[in-house]
Amino acid sequence: MSHYLAEFIGTAILIFLGDGVCANITLNKSKSQNAGSLFCMIGWSLAVGVPALIFGGISGAHFNPALTIAFAAIGKFPWAEVPGYVVSQMLGGFIGAVLVWIHYLPHWAESKDIPSEVILSIFCTTPAIRNYTMNFISEFMATFILVFTILGVGAAKTADGVGTVFVAFIILVIGTGLGGTTGFAINPARDLSPRIAHALLPINGKNGSDWAYSWIPVIAPVCGGIAAAGMFAVIF
Amino acid sequence: MSHYLAEFIGTAILIFLGDGVCANITLNKSKSQNAGSLFCMIGWSLAVGVPALIFGGISGAHFNPALTIAFAAIGKFPWAEVPGYVVSQMLGGFIGAVLVWIHYLPHWAESKDIPSEVILSIFCTTPAIRNYTMNFISEFMATFILVFTILGVGAAKTADGVGTVFVAFIILVIGTGLGGTTGFAINPARDLSPRIAHALLPINGKNGSDWAYSWIPVIAPVCGGIAAAGMFAVIF
Amino acid sequence: MSHYLAEFIGTAILIFLGDGVCANITLNKSKSQNAGSLFCMIGWSLAVGVPALIFGGISGAHFNPALTIAFAAIGKFPWAEVPGYVVSQMLGGFIGAVLVWIHYLPHWAESKDIPSEVILSIFCTTPAIRNYTMNFISEFMATFILVFTILGVGAAKTADGVGTVFVAFIILVIGTGLGGTTGFAINPARDLSPRIAHALLPINGKNGSDWAYSWIPVIAPVCGGIAAAGMFAVIF
Amino acid sequence: MSHYLAEFIGTAILIFLGDGVCANITLNKSKSQNAGSLFCMIGWSLAVGVPALIFGGISGAHFNPALTIAFAAIGKFPWAEVPGYVVSQMLGGFIGAVLVWIHYLPHWAESKDIPSEVILSIFCTTPAIRNYTMNFISEFMATFILVFTILGVGAAKTADGVGTVFVAFIILVIGTGLGGTTGFAINPARDLSPRIAHALLPINGKNGSDWAYSWIPVIAPVCGGIAAAGMFAVIF
Repeated sequence: MSHYLAEFIGTAILIFLGDGVCANITLNKSKSQNAGSLFCMIGWSLAVGVPALIFGGISGAHFNPALTIAFAAIGKFPWAEVPGYVVSQMLGGFIGAVLVWIHYLPHWAESKDIPSEVILSIFCTTPAIRNYTMNFISEFMATFILVFTILGVGAAKTADGVGTVFVAFIILVIGTGLGGTTGFAINPARDLSPRIAHALLPINGKNGSDWAYSWIPVIAPVCGGIAAAGMFAVIF
Repeated sequence: MSHYLAEFIGTAILIFLGDGVCANITLNKSKSQNAGSLFCMIGWSLAVGVPALIFGGISGAHFNPALTIAFAAIGKFPWAEVPGYVVSQMLGGFIGAVLVWIHYLPHWAESKDIPSEVILSIFCTTPAIRNYTMNFISEFMATFILVFTILGVGAAKTADGVGTVFVAFIILVIGTGLGGTTGFAINPARDLSPRIAHALLPINGKNGSDWAYSWIPVIAPVCGGIAAAGMFAVIF
Repeated sequence: MSHYLAEFIGTAILIFLGDGVCANITLNKSKSQNAGSLFCMIGWSLAVGVPALIFGGISGAHFNPALTIAFAAIGKFPWAEVPGYVVSQMLGGFIGAVLVWIHYLPHWAESKDIPSEVILSIFCTTPAIRNYTMNFISEFMATFILVFTILGVGAAKTADGVGTVFVAFIILVIGTGLGGTTGFAINPARDLSPRIAHALLPINGKNGSDWAYSWIPVIAPVCGGIAAAGMFAVIF
Repeated sequence: MSHYLAEFIGTAILIFLGDGVCANITLNKSKSQNAGSLFCMIGWSLAVGVPALIFGGISGAHFNPALTIAFAAIGKFPWAEVPGYVVSQMLGGFIGAVLVWIHYLPHWAESKDIPSEVILSIFCTTPAIRNYTMNFISEFMATFILVFTILGVGAAKTADGVGTVFVAFIILVIGTGLGGTTGFAINPARDLSPRIAHALLPINGKNGSDWAYSWIPVIAPVCGGIAAAGMFAVIF
């Protein structure tokens, strides 16, 4: 399998399972409606961890342009591969979101009383308090932790597969510790691609896709990731 | 131990512990009544993971006709063994459900006010929204992810036992991400066998076993599993 | 360290942390009062798992007379060591319960409005529905699963420490799947020893220690464990 | 990287993620407000576990003066390094708390109706029942378990990285079993440093930093840790 196909399929599975848990806890008549924050974050952590194990040996399992760019910025990944990786990740995120829409198809029509911004939050992140400066900083900080700890876990000696368990732990602990502000997008393919899917799909009762906010979960993760990789390269 | 006995006992333990958690959160006077979705899904994930570790070295720990048939379809398992595996799995699922009924015996009589379809859902899955086409698609998609990720985890390099931790993770993430629609049967032995047990056992206040729906969690997992195995064989 | 000391300390830690979680979710003013079933069972699973890793290499980390006797019954453990193990385990369970009482000391006086049988349930198990025949069968079945799966995990090939993760998983899945009926004592040292501590300690607002029930979580686990070990020895 | 820098960064990440989960479940408009005790404790356990894996090979990943002093007391760590370690840990705890304040910056102004002692509890621990003798004993006991089990897990044979999973388990089980009384500070750098940050930062609606209590989560963990290490050294 090519690196690009691995990134595409891995990201598609990630978003299918990750946005899937958001649909599961949100949509009317869904069996786990209102199942709570821990349910949601355990879902996301394994939505990353399972494909990370499967595709880690093929593509490195980035699934995240912020990670790919950060690795390239410190010479751990060839710049020439970055465009192919990013395109594959963004396409994967889009397809994953479409699969969520299909999987939960009859539930959208039953959820007309759910506010349109809550429906949007199934697909992409929304800020708890709209404050673009602080939202940028929160996403920057959360992605800084993501990239720094991913690099640190990668540098630690772990038995095969155990490092990937810690990758899932990283997602879970960022969600529990830092998810309260902006919903820890920390990944443009996790946020912009499903947002585009939301804009294009004929979802019942949807409204705007909040393009005014959409640049933050793209730019801030890339900046935070580069900063983290730079600091890691200097001190480790 | 023969392969068949391993599949039989493993599936019996799986359903005893898995349907057991459904009984635990549902029945009146049960100590974890209404303990929530995460409780339920962690229970199911380990109900698969623990016997998977025990019997993995003996029979491969399929415990699921959809998995056995999918493996056979791509030449990873001999067709000649399929009937014995499937019969063992189906019998195991039946016995597991009978054990749940015995274990919680005094609770059924205390649960007469629980609607009969909720009692049924202790044994087998019920659709959140009855729509056979979409229910089929949801089960197809969930089993596709199951078989694809099981094959992927099996192909990844993992220290002994760590791969089985990821098998439990797969069940948990399918439950959290895709369980909202049909309750992720993804396994005929998990759905049809306990349904038959429900039909045969003298359960207080039970009503029909919903045979109209019963074919979906049998046919859709088999189709989804074959599709996933086929795609895996092509691209990996 | 002697085997016996390991069993004593390990069981004391197990009960200190396990009965501790029961105190934490039950007592007034405790920070996790009403934290729920999953919280409780994760606590118990790690209360077993952590000392199991520490003392596994020294004594085998039984911490449970039902396990010790079952191993002896199939020749996996010398009968001559059984009395020393059982005494150490029972003393450890008693000390663990005393430590819980001390740790939560100011909370007992604040919990006078909590029914005395709920206070008792911090120390030892109580049946959800009092039916001695069925309670016996439920404890028998749960301990059967415990001993069978412990033996099975022990026979599986696992990287160092991973098998102990599965030991914690076993406790968690027995709790979620089978704990609804009798509270999964599955261990005389977990039930009888803290019950004796409850009887002897000057606990605010306590009432009887339910001696009428006390024999079930002693005899049933021993019988269930022997049956499981016997079946394991025959078929594996 | 120097040992000291590793302790500084590791402790900063620990407190950023750990106090972050307290902010997340407490502050108004935070996405996981009231997400519950299990959410909180899983967050703390991984806030320790993730940096423990990353920095374990560099500094030993103490992140806790009580641990460092206890190790020194039994000759497992050079006394000459203790001051540098403790200063690094205390500074890390301070910076971590400042990062939490920044990350959740717009939320403090929205949380003016939250009692000042609850705001304080985002940063450091508060006793469930104020009783300095018993609070000291509870912190002593919890840290005794921490240091004893950390030493025990360190002495056990585990595949690379699996021991660190158990370190996370230790934090989680101390939280579930013993956290109900004083909130398991068990670490001066986790309690005193964020308390100082609380005192210095311009937090909306804050009141005193409860200096009357502040010595207990410093002195008791140090005493409990030394006692545990001493007992471990004698019996193992």
